[in-house]
Amino acid sequence: MAGGAYDLFELYGRLLDEDRLEDWLDLFAETSRYEIVSRENRALNLPLSLMLCDNKDMLRDRIHSLRHANIFNIHRDCHVIGLVHAVPAAGERVSAGASYSLFQSNQDGETRLFSVGRYYFELVRHGDSLLIAQALVVVDTGTIPTLLATPI
Amino acid sequence: MAGGAYDLFELYGRLLDEDRLEDWLDLFAETSRYEIVSRENRALNLPLSLMLCDNKDMLRDRIHSLRHANIFNIHRDCHVIGLVHAVPAAGERVSAGASYSLFQSNQDGETRLFSVGRYYFELVRHGDSLLIAQALVVVDTGTIPTLLATPI
Amino acid sequence: MAGGAYDLFELYGRLLDEDRLEDWLDLFAETSRYEIVSRENRALNLPLSLMLCDNKDMLRDRIHSLRHANIFNIHRDCHVIGLVHAVPAAGERVSAGASYSLFQSNQDGETRLFSVGRYYFELVRHGDSLLIAQALVVVDTGTIPTLLATPI
Repeated sequence: MAGGAYDLFELYGRLLDEDRLEDWLDLFAETSRYEIVSRENRALNLPLSLMLCDNKDMLRDRIHSLRHANIFNIHRDCHVIGLVHAVPAAGERVSAGASYSLFQSNQDGETRLFSVGRYYFELVRHGDSLLIAQALVVVDTGTIPTLLATPI
Repeated sequence: MAGGAYDLFELYGRLLDEDRLEDWLDLFAETSRYEIVSRENRALNLPLSLMLCDNKDMLRDRIHSLRHANIFNIHRDCHVIGLVHAVPAAGERVSAGASYSLFQSNQDGETRLFSVGRYYFELVRHGDSLLIAQALVVVDTGTIPTLLATPI
Repeated sequence: MAGGAYDLFELYGRLLDEDRLEDWLDLFAETSRYEIVSRENRALNLPLSLMLCDNKDMLRDRIHSLRHANIFNIHRDCHVIGLVHAVPAAGERVSAGASYSLFQSNQDGETRLFSVGRYYFELVRHGDSLLIAQALVVVDTGTIPTLLATPI
């Protein structure tokens, strides 16, 4: 079982689904990185990302522009996250992973499978809880980057 | 982690999938409420429900009529429920939630994504276990009410 | 909650998704059985299986031929496994179950729902961990056997 990592993944998916993006930001450590890559690029070790924020300010900007500037199809996310894996890593960190399925529903109530893949997180302790130092999202689904408005 | 709430959600989905509707009924407290609403109606605070049983006898009747009167497409449900959230609430209650994906397969073995959404449950202690005092199912998928034969 | 059974299901899905089939084999006890049946055949108690390996050597052969002989569409699996059920069984065994959704993505990054159903496992203690003595996979989706290259 996965203790704090379980709770972190649970919160991660729930905050995105409830469109609480600013609270979702709080899951990240000040020094942190968020990256979405395709399974294929990762296997080939290609440097292309579908989304890359290599510090928290970039992630803040991204959320800010989602709120104030971007135009995108309004949708509702539903993350169904599978079983959680967590192992201790160097420096009191925790390496954690979980597969996810992400469904999007539009304003007509039509639901589609938007993305499946796996989270690979590096977590750091922060008081009683864990924060994300690195979030790598490896997507199996060849998502078109322009459709990737909100985080996965 | 979510302890007893985890077990309750696990049992909730399993009993529905195994068509053990009478055992599923036993998960509800005598004073209980079961409601399915769309995400949109909930956000707009509209009173329309896709299904509403505001006491356990109504839920009993519903199951009874499913067994004896209703005509509907025979299907097999498969609930894949995601990570469980549980927090203590007033009066020794537990507020619990989880996202779900519900797949239905027909007699030809064709599977479709039937509904995604989230469970919001209020649980009460009953001896060693938890019972459902309120089950609110918020569906993202715009399910047609007439297709909603069995509970989600 | 489900302790060691949770970890076993987590590892089971992860190893398949990472194409670590030889490590996946190590989850099985020397005396073990792996079977995939349709929900319908199980309900009718028909002896037909979609895949049956009634000892570990058969499972080894199957993996070996997947690696060296079989020709099949290259795909990437993503298992999203739901809540885990586990109860003690006779002889220090554990009976465990979980519903799964299995998504496959092809080399163009197109993802489809490949199979949903439920795992019914009999687990045996082996030192600190659990091994699979019997894995029964009951599929709701009428998967065409010839497409069933890799285990579910």
